[in-house]
Amino acid sequence: MAKRCERLEGSRARSVLSGAEAVLFDCDGVLWRGEAAVPGAAEAVRRLEAGAGKRLCYVTNNSSRTRGDYTEKLRRLGFPPAQERQVFSSAYCAARYLRAALPPGGAAASAAYVLGGPALSAELQAAGVAHVGAGPAPAPPTLDHAQSGPLDPAVGAVLVGYDPHFSYAKLCLSLRYLMRDPGCLLVATNRDHRLPLEGGRAVPGTGCLVKAVETAAEREAFVIGKPSRYIFDCVVSEFNIDPARTIMVGDRLDTDILMGNTCGLTTLLTLTGVSTLEEVQGHLESSCPERRSLVPDYYVDSIADLLPALQD
Amino acid sequence: MAKRCERLEGSRARSVLSGAEAVLFDCDGVLWRGEAAVPGAAEAVRRLEAGAGKRLCYVTNNSSRTRGDYTEKLRRLGFPPAQERQVFSSAYCAARYLRAALPPGGAAASAAYVLGGPALSAELQAAGVAHVGAGPAPAPPTLDHAQSGPLDPAVGAVLVGYDPHFSYAKLCLSLRYLMRDPGCLLVATNRDHRLPLEGGRAVPGTGCLVKAVETAAEREAFVIGKPSRYIFDCVVSEFNIDPARTIMVGDRLDTDILMGNTCGLTTLLTLTGVSTLEEVQGHLESSCPERRSLVPDYYVDSIADLLPALQD
Repeated sequence: MAKRCERLEGSRARSVLSGAEAVLFDCDGVLWRGEAAVPGAAEAVRRLEAGAGKRLCYVTNNSSRTRGDYTEKLRRLGFPPAQERQVFSSAYCAARYLRAALPPGGAAASAAYVLGGPALSAELQAAGVAHVGAGPAPAPPTLDHAQSGPLDPAVGAVLVGYDPHFSYAKLCLSLRYLMRDPGCLLVATNRDHRLPLEGGRAVPGTGCLVKAVETAAEREAFVIGKPSRYIFDCVVSEFNIDPARTIMVGDRLDTDILMGNTCGLTTLLTLTGVSTLEEVQGHLESSCPERRSLVPDYYVDSIADLLPALQD
Repeated sequence: MAKRCERLEGSRARSVLSGAEAVLFDCDGVLWRGEAAVPGAAEAVRRLEAGAGKRLCYVTNNSSRTRGDYTEKLRRLGFPPAQERQVFSSAYCAARYLRAALPPGGAAASAAYVLGGPALSAELQAAGVAHVGAGPAPAPPTLDHAQSGPLDPAVGAVLVGYDPHFSYAKLCLSLRYLMRDPGCLLVATNRDHRLPLEGGRAVPGTGCLVKAVETAAEREAFVIGKPSRYIFDCVVSEFNIDPARTIMVGDRLDTDILMGNTCGLTTLLTLTGVSTLEEVQGHLESSCPERRSLVPDYYVDSIADLLPALQD
């Protein structure tokens, strides 16, 4: 049945929530904005978990924070305590993917060349994936070295994450690894175009860097984060949840809602972040199947709107 | 009539050449490879100009050389002397475009923020286009400065050329200029994915940087170089040549040949550079109109093959 983006309230809210076993939350724009919790969000999360007994997971495209950073931030902003295994970031899931896709450590082509920072490096380290290039604060390679210096013989994958030290030299080095071996994997944490800041400002997202590498390599990257279903597959393999009894809550139609719809989840848009009801309206009126797949089942102004349906 | 990529030789070569008034040459892969002239190419060019009286122009997507660099290289490699006005590089044509598209110097939004090197800067300077950001060897902005430093109030365009100092910080600054003013122009010298080097090696081309900026800006750039017809329009406005009596000679189907076909020129592929007859064959057998538009009228192994048809 076509999704219609209905407001989730009253008896419908109680029925949708009571039918769910698991709720997946995007974080920024849903639970908080920057360092400020969305008012009422922590209480809604508490009631979903402790009161209604839902399995909660946190699913984020951000590759510049570790899972520990997320549990710490949840705590700091007054959310119920979470375990690291409830956090599915694109950094953690990329590390999981490479651990499975690359040969065991020490074998040929078992390491990753990484465009990214210290959190991505830490998740790779925790997963036992050998890697070069990533932070904490590496000197970007000089252009001469990137163009003609020796390549690391162990590299069998290029992983593109959020990298504030991205440079033409790093792009050169990525291309050399990908041209050296047609079997070299090309993996991206996510395709987000921009990261919104306060006051309508924004900085370029990982998707810009991914496009640069893909254009040079003339290949498409395997994408870990939303809307790719890989990040949801990680949740399923960890918690064995049933898609038909899972709600995906997010603020972006093109990542959160699209992934949820693709994976057969119930999708709930919250208006505390990036996407607006006007955008949904445009998709609803479109005859294009791709745009229709961006329409959520339900929306709320804020996840605090779920509180009445979650009375103890 | 559908183009069939016939070998240009014998009486057909004499007839095609005698019917032409002007010949446009791509340079690298056609006249030379790196620092080595294609054997016989200089003599073919000499006979076309001095013997057969053709108007010759040099049309290149390279944005990292000035027109003077090209006339000097032609001289150095033994080609007939050329005037700078015969050289149409994407750097020169970008400067021409911005001179026409931006308000006069001193007015608001009359300057360009430039991702590029000293040659691009020199062409802008020669055209009288105020600009910031470009080489010779500017310190790339620090990330802090790019994200929160003051913006130049005069900037009304972002110009993306070949920039070996491209960085995430420059990408941030580009996005800020483009978000500050929805009327800010976004211009790219070209979309080439890679620059081929000797021995099958390659480095990332300007197209990679363009994609990164376009992805962040969520806008498409206006492209100056081949296959855009803008660079050909520059030739026409300078020399008033007749497309129906003009031959475009190039080594790349997706730039040289596509532009020539789009603009109604006779197109001649030479096999001393990037594209191969196998690629042409794939396009010839395709029913896709976009691929058919990459098929040239004629091909030669090298432009030296034109010598017999150009006997004095």
